[in-house]
Amino acid sequence: MQLLKERIIKDGQLFPGNILKVDSFLNHQVDISLLNEIGLEFKRRFADCDINKILTIEASGIGIACIVAQYFDCPVVFAKKSKSINISNDFYQSDVMSYTHGNLNHVIVSKDFIGSGDKVLVIDDFLAHGCALRGLIDIIESSGAELKGCGIVIEKGFQSGGDDLRNRGIKVESLAIVESMNAENGEIVFR
Amino acid sequence: MQLLKERIIKDGQLFPGNILKVDSFLNHQVDISLLNEIGLEFKRRFADCDINKILTIEASGIGIACIVAQYFDCPVVFAKKSKSINISNDFYQSDVMSYTHGNLNHVIVSKDFIGSGDKVLVIDDFLAHGCALRGLIDIIESSGAELKGCGIVIEKGFQSGGDDLRNRGIKVESLAIVESMNAENGEIVFR
Repeated sequence: MQLLKERIIKDGQLFPGNILKVDSFLNHQVDISLLNEIGLEFKRRFADCDINKILTIEASGIGIACIVAQYFDCPVVFAKKSKSINISNDFYQSDVMSYTHGNLNHVIVSKDFIGSGDKVLVIDDFLAHGCALRGLIDIIESSGAELKGCGIVIEKGFQSGGDDLRNRGIKVESLAIVESMNAENGEIVFR
Repeated sequence: MQLLKERIIKDGQLFPGNILKVDSFLNHQVDISLLNEIGLEFKRRFADCDINKILTIEASGIGIACIVAQYFDCPVVFAKKSKSINISNDFYQSDVMSYTHGNLNHVIVSKDFIGSGDKVLVIDDFLAHGCALRGLIDIIESSGAELKGCGIVIEKGFQSGGDDLRNRGIKVESLAIVESMNAENGEIVFR
């Protein structure tokens, strides 16, 4: 998605350790006009998928998912991160390692809001190692819902998460795939 | 807002301890059509306020704020919760007690995204004791931005947060104010 790539080049900030900060338009301050263009593009890419539910994970996925959901005319469910294992029978649960924060989260979704008959599009801001996405996919599979695909704003193509999921036959659409980045000279190469 | 009150009556769940769960349409699963009606209503109530930024706090405020922002044609900034005190000079910071989770959060907003000249509408899902809101207002005041008001989806009118803020002269618009609730018979009375 050209508009997004241009915005990443213009406003993204690179830091050592393959860190790409986009918090001026996606992750802390949010450019709603850009999100609407992102919503249109996901609708184009998943037009024939008959999506009836969008699943994301708190926190930074929520705003994107809500704007995107307008183009699919469906509700959003956001998975919650929980420090403690939830012993209730009311939730699907998966464990997700966060490389960003260096901790393990338990991710939960109420059984009331996902289940057999649902055709689910997973939306998230970033895909790198794919831990969060695998957790959401685990939950979809446990629930009996059907995973129609994953819509990602920015994928770090030099980490394996995206291609691992594609190798499992999952439709993963990333609007910008960063093939390499160089914090020293600020260069970003897209796939 | 009649549509919202009817939805709370229909789908809200009451539990002992003055707990009102609305996670089928607002807090876990999100009804985007309802959020659009909420956006329209906030636009009506803050039409003459010249808002150029919406501030909220992760996680459940984000989706609401992003949909609402479409009616004001402005970006959203969401404050982040941090477990550790942030010693960086790059952030405004405030301490927020969470009654729901029984812990203290440090709430941070980058100095890059709020400052003098901004006319800020604060958006959040719930207002009870008002701790989160006071934290956001502290940050707005520290930044030199102008607080134009607070737009709340559901206020617990029997707790003091909303009226404390109104007594300070702050424009607080809550779309549904719950005056009392009774978990035993399921009765909800609105102000």
